[in-house]
Parts: sequence; structure tokens; C-alpha cells
Amino acid sequence: MRITEDYLKSIIDSTLLKPSAIPKDVELLCDEAVMIGFGAVCIRPDDVNYSSMLLHGTDVAVCTVVGFPWGIQKIKSKINEAYDAVCDGATEIDMVLNRAYLKSQDYSMLETEIKSVTNNAKNCVHAKDDVIVKVILETDKLTDDEIIEACKISEQAGADFVKTSTGAYGGATEHHVKLMKQSCNLEVKASGGIRDWDDAYKMIMAGATRLGTSGGANILKTYHNAIRLGSYVI
Amino acid sequence: MRITEDYLKSIIDSTLLKPSAIPKDVELLCDEAVMIGFGAVCIRPDDVNYSSMLLHGTDVAVCTVVGFPWGIQKIKSKINEAYDAVCDGATEIDMVLNRAYLKSQDYSMLETEIKSVTNNAKNCVHAKDDVIVKVILETDKLTDDEIIEACKISEQAGADFVKTSTGAYGGATEHHVKLMKQSCNLEVKASGGIRDWDDAYKMIMAGATRLGTSGGANILKTYHNAIRLGSYVI
Repeated sequence: MRITEDYLKSIIDSTLLKPSAIPKDVELLCDEAVMIGFGAVCIRPDDVNYSSMLLHGTDVAVCTVVGFPWGIQKIKSKINEAYDAVCDGATEIDMVLNRAYLKSQDYSMLETEIKSVTNNAKNCVHAKDDVIVKVILETDKLTDDEIIEACKISEQAGADFVKTSTGAYGGATEHHVKLMKQSCNLEVKASGGIRDWDDAYKMIMAGATRLGTSGGANILKTYHNAIRLGSYVI
Repeated sequence: MRITEDYLKSIIDSTLLKPSAIPKDVELLCDEAVMIGFGAVCIRPDDVNYSSMLLHGTDVAVCTVVGFPWGIQKIKSKINEAYDAVCDGATEIDMVLNRAYLKSQDYSMLETEIKSVTNNAKNCVHAKDDVIVKVILETDKLTDDEIIEACKISEQAGADFVKTSTGAYGGATEHHVKLMKQSCNLEVKASGGIRDWDDAYKMIMAGATRLGTSGGANILKTYHNAIRLGSYVI
């Protein structure tokens, strides 16, 4: 598989979720995403309205997070948060699953949670476009068996992607991406600690078809360096 | 000021917020709180209903968190989360402020946020009792000037307490508790890193009238040790 520049750009969710970011940071993120041509920005729920306005008429999708970063909210809160995000212009929802359900093997509740959020987001009458739902597992805090179970349940519940991490803890590993890819028929978003082309390449080779990163520009830069230096040939 | 055992117990919010905790952990927390006589348990939003049931008829208050731990949700989401928590039986709401508003000096939005959550929680017709609202600043991520501003705005907005930390980062410091106490006429809840009597004593001396901790039992044990050994005399 040869990774072209266009493909690489298209699978990057350029991410800014830290609580201290101010509106100017959001503007810079959106401007950069348009300039470079990233597939999406992934921003805080409270920034969705503003980012949607900034990105109106461009090809950059607006992605946001639900129950972020701990996933400890009630199902009802997550449903409302996702629905409101879609109303505000988001077309991609990265929800954090309730880890307590997974750890206590309450798989029925976990499926109910993911299904409820997914259905409400996808069926929002104000959606700008088809809504994509990704389920954040926080793989660093799970056993392999729990990861496999979470992937299967996410698929049953109608999600589109499983995503490795919030970035608040350890990030994506090749092992986890491969495991997730093997466990279900969903796409895999790798996130957390992906800072340059080497990291991105490993994740893509492991099976990731989306990368969540705050280092999108650097990934592109180091990709170009690799091609220039002949260490990567397309 | 002599700190009696009864007072010490009464100001402890025995806390369990980690995403991996299972229902059995919540049960143990509530049982212990009743047995020891803590003032409150502080549990995840998704556990409020169950904890309220477990603690029905006891003197232990149910506290939960809103926008936890990053505070990046829309105001609307925080209002709904707080309102639902009160409906579920919580009488204390620890809300994480939107740090972006503070960092960008959008004080009007910050006041609107805190006031909206506070008013909606306090005026919920399903409230079991008077509702107490605490505003979590995450002092470790703020300058002294930002802490002072956040305290003043919290007071103007009608909150009851300012609270140092989520516990996800650095915890409470004596400096921050004193600064918060001096900056407003609200009570101060110290939280994060309070594990024994020495920690608790320092926070109380600095001005804290509430302690958020997962080490409540150990604080009591080490308090008794200190009295037994004569290092603390009541």
C-alpha cells in the first residue's frame, strides 16, 4: 500500500481538545485545516458552533467529542450532547464509552449506550450530512479481552469506527490497532501520541484509516522529508 | 481551632470518580460513608441514582460532578447534567468551569455558565433538599490572577463553594486554598492529593471547610493515631 499525500491529509482529524485553548487557537486550527486540506478538525463540544461557521463551505468536516474524556456521564447526557453537537454542525461524533459498563461486563448497558448515542446523532433532523460515530475505548486502560468485547459491541450498536484513546493517557499502539481491526468490521481511528510520519505510518500499517492528532502539520512535513530523503517511496 | 472527629467526618466528601469503578465499588463507598459518618459521597453522574437509593434515609449527602473532568462541554450540556443529577437525588453539584472562558478573559460567559448551572440546579423542583453548588477551578492550571477572578465570578454567579481541583492533575495546595479563601466570601473545598491527617490538617488550617478525597478512612485513622500519640491535642 502506497500512502499518497492526499490520502494522508484526508485521514487526519486535526485535534484541539485541551481545556485551556482559547478561541484564537480554534481559529488557527480551522485555518490550518483548510490550508493543508485535512479531512476534519476534532474540537471541544463548546467550539462546534464556531468551528462550523469558520469551516462553512470548505471540505473540512467538524468532529467533536461526547462524554470526554472520562465517559462517566449518564446515557441521557451523552445522547443530548451528541444531538446538540450535530445540531451545531458536527458530522462526526467521537464518544467515550462508559468504562464501568465494560469492566462490570454489563454488555447490555454498553450496547444500549452506544446505540442510543449513535441513533440519536445519525437521526438528528438538523444534521448537515451523514453523521459518523466513533467509539473511544481508551485502550490503555483495558485488557485485550475487553478491547475485543468493546469492538464487537460497538459494531452491533451501529457505530462506524472504534477509536483507541482520548489522548489523556497512553496513546495508540500498533498492537491495539491491529487487535481492534481484527475484532470487528469497523474502521479504526488511532489517536494519542501520533506526532510524526513514523508514528502515522505504523498506525496505518496496523490498520488505522483515521488518525487523531494535534501534530497534523508535522506529520505532513516529516512525510515530505521521508520522500525527499528516499526513506519512503510512493 | 480544635478539629473534632465529628467535624472532620462531616466535611469529608468521600470520592469515587474514576471511570473504571464498578457498581460494587460504589456500594462499598456508600456503605463506608454510612458506617463512618462522612458528610457526603462524591460519585460519577451515572451513579447518582443508585447511590441515592443506597443512601436513602441516611445523613450522607450525594454529591456529583458536572462537565467532569475537563469542563469543555456546552453550557446547555452542563445545565442538563446538573439538573438531571438533582432529579436523580444529588444535593451537591461540583461543576468544572470552562477554562477557555477564563483564559480568554471572557468573564461574562464564565459568569453566565456558572449562574445558569447554579440556578437550574438550585431551582429544580425535584430537589430532595437545598442544593449546594461548588465550582471546580483546576488551580494547578491557572495563574493566581485567574484563580482570584474565578473566585469572584463564582461568588457573583451564586455558587456556594469554590473547589481547587478535579484530582486529574496536581491537587490542592495550601497557597491556593488561602488565595481562594481571601478572594471571595465562598467556602473552599480542597481536593486532590489529600490522603492523611497531615494533608487534611494543612488544608483546614489554610481555610478549607470541605475536603474531597478518596482516602477518608485513612484520614480518620491517622487522625486517631495523631491524638493517641499526642501529636494532635483536642
